[in-house]
Amino acid sequence: MHADKPIAESTVRRLSLYLRVLEQARERGVETISSDALADEGGTTSAQVRKDLSFFGSFGTRGRGYAVADLVAELRRILGLGREWRVYIVGAGKIGAALSTYQGFVQRGFTVLGIYDNDPRVVGTTVEGQVVRDFGTLAADARRDEPDIAVLAVPGEAAQHVAEQVVAAGIDAILNFAPVALHLAPNVTVRSVNMALELEGLAYAIVHRDPVTTAA
Amino acid sequence: MHADKPIAESTVRRLSLYLRVLEQARERGVETISSDALADEGGTTSAQVRKDLSFFGSFGTRGRGYAVADLVAELRRILGLGREWRVYIVGAGKIGAALSTYQGFVQRGFTVLGIYDNDPRVVGTTVEGQVVRDFGTLAADARRDEPDIAVLAVPGEAAQHVAEQVVAAGIDAILNFAPVALHLAPNVTVRSVNMALELEGLAYAIVHRDPVTTAA
Repeated sequence: MHADKPIAESTVRRLSLYLRVLEQARERGVETISSDALADEGGTTSAQVRKDLSFFGSFGTRGRGYAVADLVAELRRILGLGREWRVYIVGAGKIGAALSTYQGFVQRGFTVLGIYDNDPRVVGTTVEGQVVRDFGTLAADARRDEPDIAVLAVPGEAAQHVAEQVVAAGIDAILNFAPVALHLAPNVTVRSVNMALELEGLAYAIVHRDPVTTAA
Repeated sequence: MHADKPIAESTVRRLSLYLRVLEQARERGVETISSDALADEGGTTSAQVRKDLSFFGSFGTRGRGYAVADLVAELRRILGLGREWRVYIVGAGKIGAALSTYQGFVQRGFTVLGIYDNDPRVVGTTVEGQVVRDFGTLAADARRDEPDIAVLAVPGEAAQHVAEQVVAAGIDAILNFAPVALHLAPNVTVRSVNMALELEGLAYAIVHRDPVTTAA
């Protein structure tokens, strides 16, 4: 086992994808799966699958494939999904509200303990079944709730300040939906999701598609 | 100009980030900006900034930095943002609804022409000011609307089938929010946003944080 060796982000993403494929296979009653099948569903190659899984020990039997149930359990353990993750969502706008009931979070053991906003017109209202808390109470609440992760769904111009407040409250893992880079202490783990950036990447790909044709 | 040369996805993402920083600088009345400042706000190094921008010609003057307005115009052109992008959203659930009015899309020239669902209880209802269209009419609508991009906000198990229908309707660029890999013809451009995957990546990073401490 080399699970304490740092693994590339891209590998971790593929492990998450494999886990999804395996769980779907298990639901269909499939007991073993080949690296080819895993690769196909995970959008990669069987050589990549074998390489990725080799980081964590040997799960496959040559000619028989991987034992689905064992590999599900092991990937869940590796990915840290064997436990509950306690999440605060900051920003009760449309994205924050949608995230607060996002099934993909709930299914993986992420529990939303609170949703926060600083707008007095929003604080105290109910969003997706949760009463929106005042951002001013986050630090005090965090001492009681002990959240692991804060999801920032705030405007870009507010994100840095909000992130600093969140870190000051003792939360050192942030999923950032604001379209800005956050500057935080190195012990804080940040992942960013920027939906507009992805759409722009798509626009770029469309514009620069078929370079041969364009150059001809 | 080498803009027809394929540029790595990671470079395109940084160009989008630089553009945001530059537009914010312009709003504050800043006329020139150093590669250091761009790097700092964009979460990278000044050497990286100079390398990224060198792909597209020379915008900087040694010792004076980059002319903000010129660079904004050039990056917008490079990223294909000088035009309107016509978008269909497929899936009128919470994520689809949130995306349909996402300011980050609207501000960059992405116009949502239609939002689709296949649930008869949802079709015809109004979501964020748009009447939800029947997915069965998408192909016919697309001949009239000529959308450039489809955003898929559907459950994982429906995504492949929906994507195939979208491609059959002549849309060959997809932003996929479903947590599965899509198998489509090579001429179709696909980008994926998987929010649960990002959260899992964060969980992994927390579990495997401080490897030195863990090993000690």
